[in-house]
Amino acid sequence: MKYVRSRLKWNGWGWKATGFDLSELSEHFWEDLKGHLGLDELKETPSIALEDVKLPTRKIQKPLINKLIEMLDEDRVKIDRFERIFHAKGKSYHDLIRVRKGDMQFMPDVVVYPETTEEVRQLINFANTNNSALIPFGGGSSVVGGVEATRRVDQHGIICLDTSLMDQLVDLDRESHTATFQCGIYGPNLEHILQTKGYTLGHFPQSFEFSTLGGWIAARGAGQNSDRYGKAEEFTVAARLVSPTGDLNTCRFPASAAGPDLNHLIAGSEGILGVITEATVKIHPRPKVQDYRGFLFRDFASGLLATRKISQEDIPISMMRLSDEDETRFFTEMKKSSAGSLFERGFKKLLKARGYTDTPCLMLMGLEGDSLHVYSSVAQVTAICVGEGGVPLGKRPGDSWVKSRFHMPYLRDNLMDRGIGVDTLETSTVWSNMHNLQKVTKEAINNTLSEQGLRGMVMCHVSHSYHEGASLYFTFVFPIKQGEELEQWRQLKKAASDAILENGGTISHHHGVGMDHVPWLNEEKGVMGMNVIKNVKKLMDPQGIMNPGKIVGTVD
Amino acid sequence: MKYVRSRLKWNGWGWKATGFDLSELSEHFWEDLKGHLGLDELKETPSIALEDVKLPTRKIQKPLINKLIEMLDEDRVKIDRFERIFHAKGKSYHDLIRVRKGDMQFMPDVVVYPETTEEVRQLINFANTNNSALIPFGGGSSVVGGVEATRRVDQHGIICLDTSLMDQLVDLDRESHTATFQCGIYGPNLEHILQTKGYTLGHFPQSFEFSTLGGWIAARGAGQNSDRYGKAEEFTVAARLVSPTGDLNTCRFPASAAGPDLNHLIAGSEGILGVITEATVKIHPRPKVQDYRGFLFRDFASGLLATRKISQEDIPISMMRLSDEDETRFFTEMKKSSAGSLFERGFKKLLKARGYTDTPCLMLMGLEGDSLHVYSSVAQVTAICVGEGGVPLGKRPGDSWVKSRFHMPYLRDNLMDRGIGVDTLETSTVWSNMHNLQKVTKEAINNTLSEQGLRGMVMCHVSHSYHEGASLYFTFVFPIKQGEELEQWRQLKKAASDAILENGGTISHHHGVGMDHVPWLNEEKGVMGMNVIKNVKKLMDPQGIMNPGKIVGTVD
Repeated sequence: MKYVRSRLKWNGWGWKATGFDLSELSEHFWEDLKGHLGLDELKETPSIALEDVKLPTRKIQKPLINKLIEMLDEDRVKIDRFERIFHAKGKSYHDLIRVRKGDMQFMPDVVVYPETTEEVRQLINFANTNNSALIPFGGGSSVVGGVEATRRVDQHGIICLDTSLMDQLVDLDRESHTATFQCGIYGPNLEHILQTKGYTLGHFPQSFEFSTLGGWIAARGAGQNSDRYGKAEEFTVAARLVSPTGDLNTCRFPASAAGPDLNHLIAGSEGILGVITEATVKIHPRPKVQDYRGFLFRDFASGLLATRKISQEDIPISMMRLSDEDETRFFTEMKKSSAGSLFERGFKKLLKARGYTDTPCLMLMGLEGDSLHVYSSVAQVTAICVGEGGVPLGKRPGDSWVKSRFHMPYLRDNLMDRGIGVDTLETSTVWSNMHNLQKVTKEAINNTLSEQGLRGMVMCHVSHSYHEGASLYFTFVFPIKQGEELEQWRQLKKAASDAILENGGTISHHHGVGMDHVPWLNEEKGVMGMNVIKNVKKLMDPQGIMNPGKIVGTVD
Repeated sequence: MKYVRSRLKWNGWGWKATGFDLSELSEHFWEDLKGHLGLDELKETPSIALEDVKLPTRKIQKPLINKLIEMLDEDRVKIDRFERIFHAKGKSYHDLIRVRKGDMQFMPDVVVYPETTEEVRQLINFANTNNSALIPFGGGSSVVGGVEATRRVDQHGIICLDTSLMDQLVDLDRESHTATFQCGIYGPNLEHILQTKGYTLGHFPQSFEFSTLGGWIAARGAGQNSDRYGKAEEFTVAARLVSPTGDLNTCRFPASAAGPDLNHLIAGSEGILGVITEATVKIHPRPKVQDYRGFLFRDFASGLLATRKISQEDIPISMMRLSDEDETRFFTEMKKSSAGSLFERGFKKLLKARGYTDTPCLMLMGLEGDSLHVYSSVAQVTAICVGEGGVPLGKRPGDSWVKSRFHMPYLRDNLMDRGIGVDTLETSTVWSNMHNLQKVTKEAINNTLSEQGLRGMVMCHVSHSYHEGASLYFTFVFPIKQGEELEQWRQLKKAASDAILENGGTISHHHGVGMDHVPWLNEEKGVMGMNVIKNVKKLMDPQGIMNPGKIVGTVD
C-alpha cells in the first residue's frame, strides 16, 4: 500500500480521515484540564487553512525541474502547494505552532520520489551539482526538526527526497532470521509483509503508522517493545548509505572485530551523511502469546525499584512503562467513567487499606513469546512487583493501552485547537540517577511555566529499560501564550534540556538530534566527538548539501 | 597484583613458571599426532636464547630517555634487553616463528609505564613532539599483530606505552551495575576486585590471565561467556580515549539517540586513534549457579541446527561451543586414557546403537545465573539437543573444559619445540552460511598444506552464537617447514582469509585486525568505510604516531 500524501494531514498528526475519538474521554476531561491549567475558558485556536499558507518563491526553476522529470517521471516530481507544505516540517509541537500559522520561512522547492538506490544516487548527484540542499524524508514524523526543510543562504533551493516509494522486501533469510528491505517502507507495510510470512520485526514506535525503516535507523528510534526487539541501532545488521561521495555499505555479520563498527555511524546519522536506501534487520517468529498487564505502586520510587530489579534480573519482558504520580493521575482522570466508578470506588478503598495515597503510580508490562516463556516471566515479574508493594491489576489496563497505543498523538491537535500546548521530550540515564533526573527535569519545566505566569501539568514515565538504566519520557501540557508561542517553547525547551544535560542525562534516548537538540549536542559529545562527526560529514558530503542544519548545525 | 614482566615468557605463552601439563595428555598423543601429520619423527626445534637475540640499535637516545624519566620516574622507563624484546610483538604463531628465531626487525627503543590518564597525555605529547611511533600495549596477547613494534621510516624510534600499572577501580555504582576502571587492569585483577564486592564482568577470553580491559575494548574482544555478558563493545558503557589532538569521551548512558554512537569507534580502534585510559563497564551479580555440560551430536549439521535453535529461541545460555568432527576427534584422542577405556567402549557401543559413526561432534554448554533460571534453561536446551538427535553427556565434559579453559595456549609452545605449528583464526557469519563457510575455510587450509606437500589437521568450532549467526573458530596443526616458516604461514593465512572473505565471513569476530588482517580489511569495509576510518585517524592523530601499521596500514 502506498502512502498517498494527500490522505495525510499537513498541519497535524496522521490520517486526515482519523482523529482522536473524543467520546473516549471522561465527561469531566475538559473541566479537569481547565482546573489543572488554571484556565476559566478554552478559546478556539484553529489552524490556518492550506490555501492561506504563503509559499516562499521557488528557487529551483522549470529547466531544473524538467531535468528531474527526465530522471524520474512526472508523477514522482512534485511542486504543488500541498506537497511543498506537507514536506516543510516534521510533527513536533515546535513544528506545529509554526505550521498552523503558516509561518514557514523555507519549504522544499520540489519533492522527488525515487524508487531505487540508483535513483537516489542520481538525485544526490543532481543536488550536489546544483548546490541544492537535499532533505531525506521518510514518514516525516520527526519531533526534533530532523526533516525540516532548510538550507544555507548560498545554497540553490531545497530538494526533498521522499523515500516512501522505496518499500520493497529485497531478501528474506528464514534460517538466519534476517530481512532486507528498501528503507522507505512504513511500519504497517513492513509488519504486514513479515507477519504474512510468520515473522515480526517487533518495532512499534508511537509513530509506527507514519514512520519508515530508514527513519528509525537514521534517528536511532525505539519502539514500544524495544526491550525485547531492540532499538533501531540494535536490530540493524547491515545497511547501505548513499552519500554525495559514494556508498557506505556494511556487511551482514552477527558480530565483527574488523575495526570500528560503522553501523553505529549510519545509525544516528539523520541524513547528514547521505540517504539510507536499504537495511538488513533482525526478525523474529511472530510471538504465540502476548500478555499486557498492569501493576499499581504506592509511589514512583517503589515502582522504580521494581523496574530496576526486573531489568537487572534479565527477565525477558518486551515492554515496561512506569508512569509517575502526575501521569498516572492524568490518564486515570482522562479515562474515568461513571460506569466504572463503583468498581473504582471499591478498588480505591482496597488501596487505602494498603496505605496507598491518592497518587499511586501505574506500571504497564508487556511480555511476548511462547507460552512457557511468557507465563514463567509473568510469575517472576509479579513476584518482584508484589515484593515492592505493587498491586497486580490484571490485564485490563494492559489491553486498554494496547488498543489505544498509536492513538494518543491525535489528541494533541484537539488540544492545540483549544489553546493548549503539548510537548514531549525524553532522555536516559543510569538507575542511580533516575529519580533525581525525573525530579529536576519536571522542576525545570514547572519553574519555567511559573515564570511565564502559567500553570501546567508535567508528567513522566520510564519507558525503555536496560541493565544499567532506563529512559525517561516527559509529556507536558500548558496554556499556549498566544502570539509568543515560539519564545514560550524555546524557554521550556532550554530549561528542560539544560536540566537534563546538567544532571547526567542524554539529550535524546530515541527522538534524535535534528535541529532542536543541536545546542546541547556539543556538551554531550564533547569537542573531539563533534569534530569526529563533522570530519566524517566533510568526507562524505564535502559541499554540505545533505540535510543542512541537523546534528552539526551548519545553516548559518 | 602487578604483572611483573620478568615473570612472563618473552618467547611463548604465559607465566615462565607454568607450562602445559604434559601428563594430562593421552599416552598415545604424540604417536597419534605423528600419524595424522604423516611424520616419522618429531625434531627438537627450540627457541633461540634471550641473550642471543640481536637487538636493533636504539634511535631514541639518552637525552630523550632522561626526559621520559623526568616525566615518570626511573622505575617506569625501561630500556633493557628483556623489556625491549618482550614488548616487540604479540603472541600469534606469526609472532612466535619470528621471536623464537630472534628475527625482529623492530623493537621498542623504550618501554614506559604510565599510571594516570594525565601521564598518558604527556607521553603521547612527547611522542608527537619527537615524531616517535607510540605503541599502546596492554597484555600483549594480540594474535593479529596488534601490538607489533613498528614504525614508518621517517619516524624517530618506537615508544611502547605499557598500560599495566593503570589498574585501579575508579568507580563502582552498585545501583546501576556499572564499574569504571583504569584500562590497564588485567582480567584476574579486575574479576578479583569485582567478585570481592559480589559482582562479575563475566569476560573470560582464553587470554584472560594475560590481557587487559583496554585491550579487550580496543580489539572488540569476546570472552568464553560472552553469549551472556556480551562482547567488549557490548559491555562498554563509556570510555575515555586519549589521542594526540585531545580526548574523546563518551558518556555513561544506557542508550542514546544523540547522533552516531562513538563507543563503537573507540571499540575496534586498536590504538590507532589513541590510548583508551578508562572505561565504564556493565557488571552483574556473581552467578549463584554455574552449570557446564556436554552433548554429543551425530554430525556437525545436526549440532548446528541445535545451536541455531537455542540461539533463536533466546534461551539465556552463557556459553555454547560446538566442535566439528575433526576437533572432537582431536580432543578425544588428546585426553583418552586407559583408565576410562572400559566406560568409553561401553559408551561407543551405545552411540553405535543410535546410528552414530566414529566421528560425532561435541557440544559444550554453559549456563549461569540463579538456580531457577539455570535449571529451566538446562531443561529447554536439553529438549532441543535431544530433539536434534543429541546425546546428553552430563557435566563431566563441561567441568573438564572449565578446568583447562585457560590452559590450552601453553601447549603451542611444546608443539613448536617439536617442529609442529599451531595457528588459529576466526570469523562469523549468518546461520544460513555457517556450514558452507566452515567447509570452504577448512578446504582452503587443507589444500594449501597439500600444495606444500604436507598433511595437517584443521579443526573448527562454533563458539559465540547470536540471533542471526555465530562465530567459527579454526585451529590448524601442521608440520613447520623449517627455514620457510614465514612464507608457509603467509600462504596459509592468505588461503584461509581469501576463502572467508569470498564466502561471506568477516575477517575477524574477536581477534581484531592488527597488521595481519590489513590486506583483507579494504574488501570488508569498502572504499568509503576505509576512508571514514582513515579520516578519523587523520583528525585524531595527524602525524600518524599512534600504533603505525595497524588497521589502516601506514608504515610504508
